[in-house]
Amino acid sequence: MTHKSREIRLASRPTGWPTPENFALAEVDVPEPRDGEALVENLFMSVDPYMRGRMNDVKSYVPPFAVGAALEGGAVGRVVVSRAKELAEGDLILSMKGWRERFVAPAGELMRLDPSVVPRSAWLGVLGVTGLTAWAGLELVDVKAGDRVFVSAAAGATGSIAGQLAKQRGCFVAGSAGSAEKVAWLRELGFDAAFNYKDGELVAQLRSAAPEGIDVYFDNVGGAHFEAALTVMRNHGRVIACGAISRYNDAAPEPGPRNLALVISKRLTIKGFIVTDWMQRRGDFVKAVLPLLASGKLRARETVVEGIERAPSAFLELLRGENVGKMIVKLAG
Amino acid sequence: MTHKSREIRLASRPTGWPTPENFALAEVDVPEPRDGEALVENLFMSVDPYMRGRMNDVKSYVPPFAVGAALEGGAVGRVVVSRAKELAEGDLILSMKGWRERFVAPAGELMRLDPSVVPRSAWLGVLGVTGLTAWAGLELVDVKAGDRVFVSAAAGATGSIAGQLAKQRGCFVAGSAGSAEKVAWLRELGFDAAFNYKDGELVAQLRSAAPEGIDVYFDNVGGAHFEAALTVMRNHGRVIACGAISRYNDAAPEPGPRNLALVISKRLTIKGFIVTDWMQRRGDFVKAVLPLLASGKLRARETVVEGIERAPSAFLELLRGENVGKMIVKLAG
Repeated sequence: MTHKSREIRLASRPTGWPTPENFALAEVDVPEPRDGEALVENLFMSVDPYMRGRMNDVKSYVPPFAVGAALEGGAVGRVVVSRAKELAEGDLILSMKGWRERFVAPAGELMRLDPSVVPRSAWLGVLGVTGLTAWAGLELVDVKAGDRVFVSAAAGATGSIAGQLAKQRGCFVAGSAGSAEKVAWLRELGFDAAFNYKDGELVAQLRSAAPEGIDVYFDNVGGAHFEAALTVMRNHGRVIACGAISRYNDAAPEPGPRNLALVISKRLTIKGFIVTDWMQRRGDFVKAVLPLLASGKLRARETVVEGIERAPSAFLELLRGENVGKMIVKLAG
Repeated sequence: MTHKSREIRLASRPTGWPTPENFALAEVDVPEPRDGEALVENLFMSVDPYMRGRMNDVKSYVPPFAVGAALEGGAVGRVVVSRAKELAEGDLILSMKGWRERFVAPAGELMRLDPSVVPRSAWLGVLGVTGLTAWAGLELVDVKAGDRVFVSAAAGATGSIAGQLAKQRGCFVAGSAGSAEKVAWLRELGFDAAFNYKDGELVAQLRSAAPEGIDVYFDNVGGAHFEAALTVMRNHGRVIACGAISRYNDAAPEPGPRNLALVISKRLTIKGFIVTDWMQRRGDFVKAVLPLLASGKLRARETVVEGIERAPSAFLELLRGENVGKMIVKLAG
C-alpha cells in the first residue's frame, strides 16, 4: 500500500530573484515504511533565507539542491506509521524533510519533540534553528550587560529573538526593520530603539537610534547595513556575521563595504558562523530559552500560510521581507 | 645659545598619492634644554605607511598632522645635552620626534635603549614598532604550529618579521611581494612559498603557493589581496587586519571585497588591531625576539637612505614598495 503526497521541487535554478517558475508542485506515492523507518505526516515546514543559497549550483557548507528533486528544510511532523522501536504512532518529530506533505525516513533522521510546547511550530522558530542561531550569535562574541547592540532584520525570526535575548542580558538594543508595523512591534518587544531603514539615510538613522555608537552588530542583512554599522561602531566593537539577506539574490557578486579599513582603526572583530556547528549546544540553548518563553519574557511571532502549494510564495515573501517573525507553512492540523 | 636643526614639514595635505610638493624642508633654531629636558641629535628616523593616514584631515586613532608643522614619527637619537637626572650625555634614546635633526624634549618622552644592539636602527624596525606589530598580529589570533599562514607585503618591515616568526612557531608560511628580488629574499628567509603578485592573477598564484588553502592571513595590503585571501581561506580561518597600504592613497573610498559573505559560510574571524594598544606587551615581545635576532634565527633587512632632505622621497618610495625590509632614514653617524 502506498500513500499520496505532494512536494515542491526545484524546477530550475534562479538567476537573481527567484520566481514561481523556479518551483514545481508534484504528486508522488510514498511507500510503506520498512523496518527501522516511520511514515510521517508534516504539520509545519520552515522557509529560511539560507535556502536561497542552496538553489545556486555552488559548493558551500551545505550541498546545493538538485534540479528536479524535492527541496529540503526543517519540518515538524507526526508519526503515522512506525516500524521503528524508538517511535510510536502520534509522536511529534522534527526532520529536515520539509517541502512535502508525507515521507518515509529512518528513525535516526527523526528527532522526537516535547508535545507540550505550544505552538508546535515553535520547534521551527524560537526553539528551533532560528532561535538557536540568535542565541549562538550572542554567545559567539560574548554579548554581555552594558553592550550596545544593533540588530538588522530585527523583526525577522532570528533578529527578533536575538534582540530580546540581548535585552535579557542587560544590553541596550536597537533594531532596524522594513515597515512601520515591524518597528512598532520591536518597540512592544522592549527594543530601546527601532527604525524603518526605508525611511531615510541608514547611517543617520542608526546614529539617532544609538547616539553613543554600538559595541555589537548582529548582521542578518549585509550590504549597506554592514557598511553603516561599521561607521557607527565604537572601538573594539564586534560584528556577528550571521546572514546577508540583502545580497542573496544578487546575480553577480556586488562590491563590499567601502569602509572596511575601520576594522583596523577601530580594532574591530568580525566573526562568521553557521548554526549547524552549534547543534551540540542545542541542550544549553533550550535550557536557556524555554523558561523565558514559558514566562512570557521572550515573545515569538509567526507569519503562517497554509498549504504545500503556498510554500514557494511564502519563500518569495520571506525574501522580500513581508513576514513578521518566523515564516511558517502549515501543512496539516 | 641655540642649535641649528632642519626638519620636514607638511606643506599641504595630499589628495591621493603624495608628491614632493606636499613636503617642505625648514631650518629652525633649537633652544637649550631646561630643567628635566634633554637636547637630542637624531641618528635614524622611521618612515611608515601609517603616516599617510595622518596626512589626511581625518580623526582616527592618532590625530592628523598639522599643515605647516614638522611631521612626527619614531626616531633613534643620542643625548647631546642633558638637564634631566635620568639621562646622560651620549645615551641612546627612542622618541616620536622623527623628521628632524635635533630637538629638545622632556625626559619622559625619551626612552633609553640598550646601546649594545647592532644595528642601532633595529630599535625602529625588528625591535621597534614594526617588529612589535608583527608579533602582536600573530598573538592576536593565536597563530600556532600547523597553521598555514599567508603574509602580504611579506618583504616589508612588518611582513618579513611576521613570516619568520610564524615559521619559528611551526607554521607553513607563504608570502607575496612586488619584485623578483623580494621573492628571492623571502625564499632565503625560509618562507615555504613566495610569489610576485605582479606576475599574474592573485588567486591563482596564491592557490599555487598554498595548495591546501590558508588558515591565517596577515593582511598588510587590503584591496585585491584581502579578497583573494578570503577566496583561498579554509574553514574557521583568521584574518589579522594589520594594514591596507594598497588603499592608503585612494582619493575616495573604494568598494570592499565582493566575497565578504565567505566570512559566514567559512566561519571566518577578522580581527583588526593597532600596535599602540600592545605597548604594555613590549617587554614580552623583546624577550621573545631578541634571542632569535642574536642567534641569527631571525633576520632583519633595512633599506637606508641618508639625510633629512631625503626623508620625503624615502616615504614616497615606501608607499610605492621600493624598499626591502625596514625603510630607514639615516640622519647622523
